[in-house]
Amino acid sequence: MEKIKIGVIGMGRIGKIHFENLKNQIENAEVVAVSDPNLKEDLGVPNMEALDLIQSGQVDAVVICSPTDTHADYISACAAAGKHVFCEKPHDLSISRVIETLEEINQAGVNLMLGFNRRFDPNFQKIRTLVQEGEIGDVHMLKITSRDPAPPSLEYLKSSGGMFLDMSIHDFDMARFIMGKEVEEVYAVAAAFVSDDVKEAGDYDTAVVTLKFEDGSMGVIDNSRKAVYGYDQRLEIFGSNGMAKVDNNKPDTHVLYNQHGAHGALPLNFFMERYTLSYQIEMRRFVESLTGGSQMPVSGFDGLQAMLIALAAQKSVMEKRPIRLKEIEDKVGILLY
Amino acid sequence: MEKIKIGVIGMGRIGKIHFENLKNQIENAEVVAVSDPNLKEDLGVPNMEALDLIQSGQVDAVVICSPTDTHADYISACAAAGKHVFCEKPHDLSISRVIETLEEINQAGVNLMLGFNRRFDPNFQKIRTLVQEGEIGDVHMLKITSRDPAPPSLEYLKSSGGMFLDMSIHDFDMARFIMGKEVEEVYAVAAAFVSDDVKEAGDYDTAVVTLKFEDGSMGVIDNSRKAVYGYDQRLEIFGSNGMAKVDNNKPDTHVLYNQHGAHGALPLNFFMERYTLSYQIEMRRFVESLTGGSQMPVSGFDGLQAMLIALAAQKSVMEKRPIRLKEIEDKVGILLY
Amino acid sequence: MEKIKIGVIGMGRIGKIHFENLKNQIENAEVVAVSDPNLKEDLGVPNMEALDLIQSGQVDAVVICSPTDTHADYISACAAAGKHVFCEKPHDLSISRVIETLEEINQAGVNLMLGFNRRFDPNFQKIRTLVQEGEIGDVHMLKITSRDPAPPSLEYLKSSGGMFLDMSIHDFDMARFIMGKEVEEVYAVAAAFVSDDVKEAGDYDTAVVTLKFEDGSMGVIDNSRKAVYGYDQRLEIFGSNGMAKVDNNKPDTHVLYNQHGAHGALPLNFFMERYTLSYQIEMRRFVESLTGGSQMPVSGFDGLQAMLIALAAQKSVMEKRPIRLKEIEDKVGILLY
Amino acid sequence: MEKIKIGVIGMGRIGKIHFENLKNQIENAEVVAVSDPNLKEDLGVPNMEALDLIQSGQVDAVVICSPTDTHADYISACAAAGKHVFCEKPHDLSISRVIETLEEINQAGVNLMLGFNRRFDPNFQKIRTLVQEGEIGDVHMLKITSRDPAPPSLEYLKSSGGMFLDMSIHDFDMARFIMGKEVEEVYAVAAAFVSDDVKEAGDYDTAVVTLKFEDGSMGVIDNSRKAVYGYDQRLEIFGSNGMAKVDNNKPDTHVLYNQHGAHGALPLNFFMERYTLSYQIEMRRFVESLTGGSQMPVSGFDGLQAMLIALAAQKSVMEKRPIRLKEIEDKVGILLY
Repeated sequence: MEKIKIGVIGMGRIGKIHFENLKNQIENAEVVAVSDPNLKEDLGVPNMEALDLIQSGQVDAVVICSPTDTHADYISACAAAGKHVFCEKPHDLSISRVIETLEEINQAGVNLMLGFNRRFDPNFQKIRTLVQEGEIGDVHMLKITSRDPAPPSLEYLKSSGGMFLDMSIHDFDMARFIMGKEVEEVYAVAAAFVSDDVKEAGDYDTAVVTLKFEDGSMGVIDNSRKAVYGYDQRLEIFGSNGMAKVDNNKPDTHVLYNQHGAHGALPLNFFMERYTLSYQIEMRRFVESLTGGSQMPVSGFDGLQAMLIALAAQKSVMEKRPIRLKEIEDKVGILLY
Repeated sequence: MEKIKIGVIGMGRIGKIHFENLKNQIENAEVVAVSDPNLKEDLGVPNMEALDLIQSGQVDAVVICSPTDTHADYISACAAAGKHVFCEKPHDLSISRVIETLEEINQAGVNLMLGFNRRFDPNFQKIRTLVQEGEIGDVHMLKITSRDPAPPSLEYLKSSGGMFLDMSIHDFDMARFIMGKEVEEVYAVAAAFVSDDVKEAGDYDTAVVTLKFEDGSMGVIDNSRKAVYGYDQRLEIFGSNGMAKVDNNKPDTHVLYNQHGAHGALPLNFFMERYTLSYQIEMRRFVESLTGGSQMPVSGFDGLQAMLIALAAQKSVMEKRPIRLKEIEDKVGILLY
Repeated sequence: MEKIKIGVIGMGRIGKIHFENLKNQIENAEVVAVSDPNLKEDLGVPNMEALDLIQSGQVDAVVICSPTDTHADYISACAAAGKHVFCEKPHDLSISRVIETLEEINQAGVNLMLGFNRRFDPNFQKIRTLVQEGEIGDVHMLKITSRDPAPPSLEYLKSSGGMFLDMSIHDFDMARFIMGKEVEEVYAVAAAFVSDDVKEAGDYDTAVVTLKFEDGSMGVIDNSRKAVYGYDQRLEIFGSNGMAKVDNNKPDTHVLYNQHGAHGALPLNFFMERYTLSYQIEMRRFVESLTGGSQMPVSGFDGLQAMLIALAAQKSVMEKRPIRLKEIEDKVGILLY
Repeated sequence: MEKIKIGVIGMGRIGKIHFENLKNQIENAEVVAVSDPNLKEDLGVPNMEALDLIQSGQVDAVVICSPTDTHADYISACAAAGKHVFCEKPHDLSISRVIETLEEINQAGVNLMLGFNRRFDPNFQKIRTLVQEGEIGDVHMLKITSRDPAPPSLEYLKSSGGMFLDMSIHDFDMARFIMGKEVEEVYAVAAAFVSDDVKEAGDYDTAVVTLKFEDGSMGVIDNSRKAVYGYDQRLEIFGSNGMAKVDNNKPDTHVLYNQHGAHGALPLNFFMERYTLSYQIEMRRFVESLTGGSQMPVSGFDGLQAMLIALAAQKSVMEKRPIRLKEIEDKVGILLY
């Protein structure tokens, strides 16, 4: 079978993960080029200008892992060149730019997958399966705990779009994925407790977000930029037939009992360790969708919805009231679905 | 040592628990009279009219476990008769009546303890201790899950004051107890998902309540009237130094592994089993406060604050906006603290 | 209903537990007398000479909690006086004396229950139920971990009969109870690791005992006199349909996560806390057997079998070979079953 | 840096694991040849006769994964050709042949590593580290539970050398690894409970093995060829300072609570899933030892000791007595250490 030929743009932390997975774990793909002006190592494939890579006849699909402010331009270029795209989240910090490029993608007839890797984590997959199989019954409530081990640098914070668009957006996507329903209303409280950088950036580091889904069911997400005990990623789902939850993964299962207590390992820290497997499965699913001609498991629409929730959360904190997603949509004039 | 002589009014489920604990578990107290027109058994002590019991020279202190709508009158009568009072929650469904009787109690110089038994549960005590000892550091977030196994009868629901005043009020008290801080603002979403009776009573059975404390820290409570897997009572606290949580108590620790999975016991179901120990400790602490002349571990003020939060939650659901406790206080004109 | 009138001989730690349970927890019994020359408190019932208590017309049944070397004599006296007996383990350190008094009990037609309280613990009861209901299938292996928090005093050790007869005997009884089968062969290794007192007493403090049951299934018991993390009481059962295990009970369910790890509570420490409930149920079952005329839940035969296993274990350590129970039985000439 | 050039002999299940790990996970090695007459796929490297591969100038080191009865011959050939060897366990079923080839390896000055992969599992590594760091104190007791999900085929059983040499040998090595001490005496009971094939092969499928280490400390291993709930691999260590244990790894952390109970995932099943990571680390350590010139993490001596314990266990079952390892050693005349 022909292998899908892939170019990777941006060889930072996450670009390298995708590169290694495409190289070592996925049979039906090969990386034929990378693009990163700062890359020092020789990876055995040419390191090209991003636009050259996109337009190269050698490349079937492009994996975009460069800084956020380049995403939309590269997606546009991929659409123009007729190349399929995998793009790390967020698509762009401007909703109108997102909508614009989604239209280009649509018109070009190419596929776009957004990098919400957590959907492919075995824990969250299991919860989704339980929901789909009716084990939870009518779902009444979803609870997500999502805490980072430490806040990013001030520089990163300043261009991140804020906690909701940068960090909570994963949880907003997770909420839609697990529930299989759209969010209708958002209420959020937020504060800057853990970091002066966060305050300086005018951002939040701690939040509680209440979601109301289209059928009246509820969701609660709690976020923090700094859990001293590590990367805390848990989820619980509750409904008429029961409740299910998933806990953190740990590096080992040991418990030590001594005169001071019972002591076990902390959660895997950080996303590189916690979501190793989800990154592999994510990229495999991208390639399978291309080779099998099936729908992308995470679409541009999914990325857009998560952004709308993030914007509603931001607005809710500022205006101290619940915000209906429709208020955000109306403002940006979403027409295309 | 002289034993405290106690009269118990209302010998329903909870009255019997207190009666047995006073009789069998607590050295420094004895029950000298009960009052319940429906009581059939001979418990070895006289069964009197409630007001006669309150005014009896044999009685030092009164434990009120009768229906809610009698609480305020009996508290008044106790104040008039100079008797100390233990009263089951809620004090009364009318804030002004609560304030009125609290004034009577104050002026009579007697003590009043409200029956928020969960404070005495070893799990929640442990969390409170960890907070007090600084193990959590600056507390950023409190999370309480509190779900009943099944909704009460329609008849009960109609006179209950609604889910927030009847059920969530325990969690509102728990939030204040664990945090050692006052709540400033409340936002709630609620729905009736699980029971036609609940709908008919115009009540809710499922809710998410977001709390903002006076120092900006946050709390989230999620409630349901019906968890098919039993009585679900969990709590988590998160702060700058770490996170702690407590899980449900179970009847045994077994796990059975067979070809279908790993299977363990469900939580203890219902409050009689789950909070057996907390009821014992609660009554012991009431008696110790009387014999030792120390402050009551749960005061009338505590009861009032939990009610204000419940009323704010109710108002928040109806007006779809966050409600500051001050809005409620202003309306009822609380003056006395 | 007439209450069973009970006399308690020996008001040490365990005698007081039974006294309180009979007084406060069990409807159909009352303690009418106690016997303990060292008892200082007034418990509200007469404190008599042991033999006077046994022969008193006021007493229907006797609970023997005095030192081991008095058990057999008091059982004899109870048989002579036609009184039912509950006796703490061990019955006696001499097998022939045990057999002698069992014959007296038989001939007098009174009932004897041995105090193997752990059978009534909800965890172990659950395992027994799983075995009986076939959830384990054909049972292939039983594993018991039983460790004390600290060795007893030298004085106690000297008159204890040794670790197997004093401590492991509970586990030997548990093995028979869970399996519902007789032990046929015993192999034991043992050592004195944790205490100079133990060495001085010529005793062991650490052991592994392998059991072979009559149908070829296997058991392993590991014992220690000193687990610095507390009283460790676990059990696992394995068979053709699955495996089940029970863990220790803990004072609370908290887990604290900080930068050093995840920390939880230690097991309940010691038997007074761990087996509180089993002592209550044990005494209730004794009284129910008397009032209902049913078979005692733990018989003299059960006590004897556990002793035989203990003696076989002792012999196995000394002779460094597996010992068949029949070797012990042959020597003492057990005739009566 | 020069990569170590490796030839893999035997491309069955385990050979493929090592091949993939060498290819995708380990920087400093490359597979230059394989040898398997039954291999159909083109793996991109030549498929040679085993002896040709061993003698090839292209090959620095040989990984032997062929059937057990070929191991010793290939090791001899590697010694003769001056090639380093990684050999899957067991080395050979004949102790004298093992000793003979170990001498050849010694004299040739090449390195031999035995494939006891479980040593590299993060759970067991953690326990070893706790022991080494003194967290357990003086170790008194080691407990290993090791159960397969299903017995192998009759054909496999017949040439396997029996359960102790084929399956328990991993646990015997683990015992030595964790304790860092030699075993002195072995007592075993065993039976055939789960499979007619096992009976027909004259083998056992269920066993309890008691170990005595050189310092008197104890070990217990329980084995079964058939745990219907999956691959059960647990370990516990107990000593003067505390106890530590490790549990099974599971595919996810979900727990589902419904009206029937609390339900979680079964252990990873089978060794391919459970020990994925240990195989990677094992091979990486083999290559690192070659490139770094350091000692092999598992030596031929380790393999020999595990075999002696297995033979002692076999003898113990047959002769129904504890067997000192020295009895086995004397018979085979081990001289070389």
